[in-house]
Amino acid sequence: MFESAELGHKIDKATYDAEVPKLREALLDAQFELAQKAKFPVIILIGGVDGSGRGDTVNLLNEWMDPRHVQTHGMGDPSDEELDRPMMWRFWRELPPKGKIGLFLGSWYTWPILNRVHGVTKVAELEQSMERARRLEKMLTDEGALIIKFWLHLSKEKQEARLTLLEENPKTRWRVTKRDWEHFRLYDKFRTVHENVIRHTNTAEAPWIIVEGAEARYRSLTVGKVILEAMRKRLQEEKVVKRHNEPHAIPLLPSIDKLHILNSLDLTQTIEKKTFEDKLEKYQGKLALLTRHPRFKNITVIVVFEGNDAAGKGGAIRRITSAVEARHYQVVPIAAPTEEERAQPYLWRFWRQIPRKGRLTIFDRSWYGRVLVERVEGFCSQADWMRAYHEINDFEAQLARHNIVVVKFWLTISKDEQLRRFEERVSRH
Amino acid sequence: MFESAELGHKIDKATYDAEVPKLREALLDAQFELAQKAKFPVIILIGGVDGSGRGDTVNLLNEWMDPRHVQTHGMGDPSDEELDRPMMWRFWRELPPKGKIGLFLGSWYTWPILNRVHGVTKVAELEQSMERARRLEKMLTDEGALIIKFWLHLSKEKQEARLTLLEENPKTRWRVTKRDWEHFRLYDKFRTVHENVIRHTNTAEAPWIIVEGAEARYRSLTVGKVILEAMRKRLQEEKVVKRHNEPHAIPLLPSIDKLHILNSLDLTQTIEKKTFEDKLEKYQGKLALLTRHPRFKNITVIVVFEGNDAAGKGGAIRRITSAVEARHYQVVPIAAPTEEERAQPYLWRFWRQIPRKGRLTIFDRSWYGRVLVERVEGFCSQADWMRAYHEINDFEAQLARHNIVVVKFWLTISKDEQLRRFEERVSRH
Repeated sequence: MFESAELGHKIDKATYDAEVPKLREALLDAQFELAQKAKFPVIILIGGVDGSGRGDTVNLLNEWMDPRHVQTHGMGDPSDEELDRPMMWRFWRELPPKGKIGLFLGSWYTWPILNRVHGVTKVAELEQSMERARRLEKMLTDEGALIIKFWLHLSKEKQEARLTLLEENPKTRWRVTKRDWEHFRLYDKFRTVHENVIRHTNTAEAPWIIVEGAEARYRSLTVGKVILEAMRKRLQEEKVVKRHNEPHAIPLLPSIDKLHILNSLDLTQTIEKKTFEDKLEKYQGKLALLTRHPRFKNITVIVVFEGNDAAGKGGAIRRITSAVEARHYQVVPIAAPTEEERAQPYLWRFWRQIPRKGRLTIFDRSWYGRVLVERVEGFCSQADWMRAYHEINDFEAQLARHNIVVVKFWLTISKDEQLRRFEERVSRH
Repeated sequence: MFESAELGHKIDKATYDAEVPKLREALLDAQFELAQKAKFPVIILIGGVDGSGRGDTVNLLNEWMDPRHVQTHGMGDPSDEELDRPMMWRFWRELPPKGKIGLFLGSWYTWPILNRVHGVTKVAELEQSMERARRLEKMLTDEGALIIKFWLHLSKEKQEARLTLLEENPKTRWRVTKRDWEHFRLYDKFRTVHENVIRHTNTAEAPWIIVEGAEARYRSLTVGKVILEAMRKRLQEEKVVKRHNEPHAIPLLPSIDKLHILNSLDLTQTIEKKTFEDKLEKYQGKLALLTRHPRFKNITVIVVFEGNDAAGKGGAIRRITSAVEARHYQVVPIAAPTEEERAQPYLWRFWRQIPRKGRLTIFDRSWYGRVLVERVEGFCSQADWMRAYHEINDFEAQLARHNIVVVKFWLTISKDEQLRRFEERVSRH
């Protein structure tokens, strides 16, 4: 797989010096157009082996472009706030909004690769991580993001030569760490894992660009030109015609026997006032004890309420919150997204509300809005709400994998009962 | 000072039961009006001695009001991301936006009080903290926030009785910690510090409401009623007439001899191209070494660029960034505030950009916009931009006190030179 990046690619200085000024100007123009229109974000991952010039490339891109509209993220060790959340949370919080470029040195590939090479995980787990990466990238590109993934490669010989060279020069010696040499000794292992990862995540919407990293001029010019062409193409598409991302729509028929879960419910069920009060007290007491348990400090709880208007979400939420210490919960009412939220993928506004451990977050309406109100009111296209079903599954799977307790309620009432409650509300005012 | 909160205030059950439903309804109405208009945020601090019912009060307020528009913050130990920034950062990030209520159990008073009682700081330092708290609250109220500060008090006897009672009941035993008894033994010391703090921070715009905490009904009803009245009054004011917060404006005369710093500068200075290139290389090299120094991990650098349009801010910024690893800096261009930023005090959008340690943040235009473009274009009132001068000083003092390196540049060019550059830009496109 890496053969084409071991050919000894080179660009001579004269060519480079002639090309760079044109490239810079074109990049600045593309960046300016991107910022003006703010129709999509650009997410650039710079992966690769140690010594392949990842840092230099990122520095150079910042120099060539307008750094005011580029956000560079090293993504080193996670903070304690990040460790409290699912792994992807730290990437969600750094996603560039529409019109900006995000450059990621560490990415959702970094830790799965390291864990596999060091034997912390098995191949199956690595492949699961890759499946998740693929789905994340699919979602981001469906939301309009332009993703460009670079893999800077060095042959074993070139890596050794590069590290030695850096170490011999007193000015660059600081850049070679013990870990770089450790990684060099694991070169073959890394190579196998890298090949596996690239093969599994080389998708149509977010392909890997493998670049030989040994020679700086070739590497820099290649990366710069790919970014330029990718941006130009997308800006051009936006100009000519709205991207055609409607799938071949499968007609959605209502169940042919008219039976579905909601109309099969018995909506006449009641509970005695006395029984209700006794049980409420009993379960509120249990909830109070559980959220005060010392081990609650290590648990995150997410509760979702959906249902018809006037179905009683507010009342149900208050019965939970009155049993829990106020500093341990937050209620997030979902209304229209803010301007900053509209500049991000649909799920961003929910990711930003994922709490730290030891807290309970209650969503009054939720990410299901996409397949409910937004679908019904026509706020998003059929393609958008159809893909939301599996995006939501992916999102919730990430929460569950992080051992977050996710509880979802659907409160339903009949049409007549809803009308009755609406009229009651009106008469009360 | 606490005498009136040691009288044994009590409300009988019948009165309480009659009052609460009316109070709840009125609070919900006020909260609804607040959310609808979203003209100002409500910041409620619940301070007081241990065992005085702070937690219970906060829980009850959440029960009485609509928890979807209340944000409760325990403010326990700071996270590592918070420790990397000035102390106030963690409060800024939790400030409620306009239309919402923020309930703070821990506040900017908590740590200064504890540090003083435990002898970590001297009286002078406590008083400096209080001065800062006063200025913060002044700024928040000037920005329109409604601040309500409660102090729940218990006499020494009542505190002992309360802690004993809680400990005897198996259901509430968990609430009494070792630290509570330690604090009880320090009661007199705490009382002296509390009196000092309250006296110094009992201002017209954010006075302390001292409430006897011993009896729950009295305490709850008092707190609830004060909040209701304070909210009603502010909502009413907003209705009748815009708050008159223009100070007696002192006429701002230009210097009578027409001499000021900008027109006294020699704008004809030049530098030889060769000298420039040599020096640029030398200083970029120094900067590169410094930001790669192991101790840079513990340093935060904030660089601000202001000046005329076309004065060369962009070029100057690029000369800095090209010497620094891209993952160590970010450039923040200041344009029009977003919707979320407009729902917060003016300085909030800058506070949110304060980086962690080991990073350099460059502001391309800054908080000085208030006294520059916003003043000149008339985007804010004279009162607003006049108070910005000392608010900015307070803000920068907090950065400096946290050992953040703050460097500010003003780039100036003559009117003729500016025109020339504008024309040059036009002709280039």
